[in-house]
Amino acid sequence: MNRTQVAKDETGGLIAADKVEGTEVYNRAGEHIGEIDNIMIDKLSGKVAYAVMSFGGFLGIGERYHPVPWSMLKYDTGQGGYVVDLDKKVLTDAPNYEPNRVPDYADRAWGKKLHDYYGVAPYWY
Amino acid sequence: MNRTQVAKDETGGLIAADKVEGTEVYNRAGEHIGEIDNIMIDKLSGKVAYAVMSFGGFLGIGERYHPVPWSMLKYDTGQGGYVVDLDKKVLTDAPNYEPNRVPDYADRAWGKKLHDYYGVAPYWY
Repeated sequence: MNRTQVAKDETGGLIAADKVEGTEVYNRAGEHIGEIDNIMIDKLSGKVAYAVMSFGGFLGIGERYHPVPWSMLKYDTGQGGYVVDLDKKVLTDAPNYEPNRVPDYADRAWGKKLHDYYGVAPYWY
Repeated sequence: MNRTQVAKDETGGLIAADKVEGTEVYNRAGEHIGEIDNIMIDKLSGKVAYAVMSFGGFLGIGERYHPVPWSMLKYDTGQGGYVVDLDKKVLTDAPNYEPNRVPDYADRAWGKKLHDYYGVAPYWY
């Protein structure tokens, strides 16, 4: 089975969703922030709206999900992960939820607030 | 662990990449075509470029991957899967590759040919 090979594929400007999932996230100071658990796609435009970062917790206890606007993430080949240019505290305090309390991602008011927190334009603009 | 719940999340206009992966694909006639193995994202624009469909094979033997332009897929709630409005033969004959022979997805000439085959505009247009 060569599923792994396909999954890890990253050629030039394209990246497999499977590869994004599980990728570590750091901040500019090199601090480990969390890892990407999943990505949320806007069905209509086909654009990636959020990278959902898992943050903290141990063996699933105390784990929180932090949806981060996709535009915030830059891949850093040196670091071997994504870099978000924010203090750890800003990310810790960002809108987040428990694994079993998934917010209404379709709620534009919720989405607007989230993007405002990070200071970036919403993906639907 | 509520990973599954998060993974299966689909709220309004957004869908989790985890949910897309493994989703069955049918044609308009209701014939089962294959399933989505992975999705390829254009890093620069953050747009989903292709759904990579696994096609045929058994226990990984004889399996082929068919990258389908994302714009070709429509989700059908009744069918519980994606519907591609093409004859099975058109999909069978479409550009495809063996799991261990991943093409250069960044090659625009290759991408253009693929989109031309399906008769849709390339995602980078």
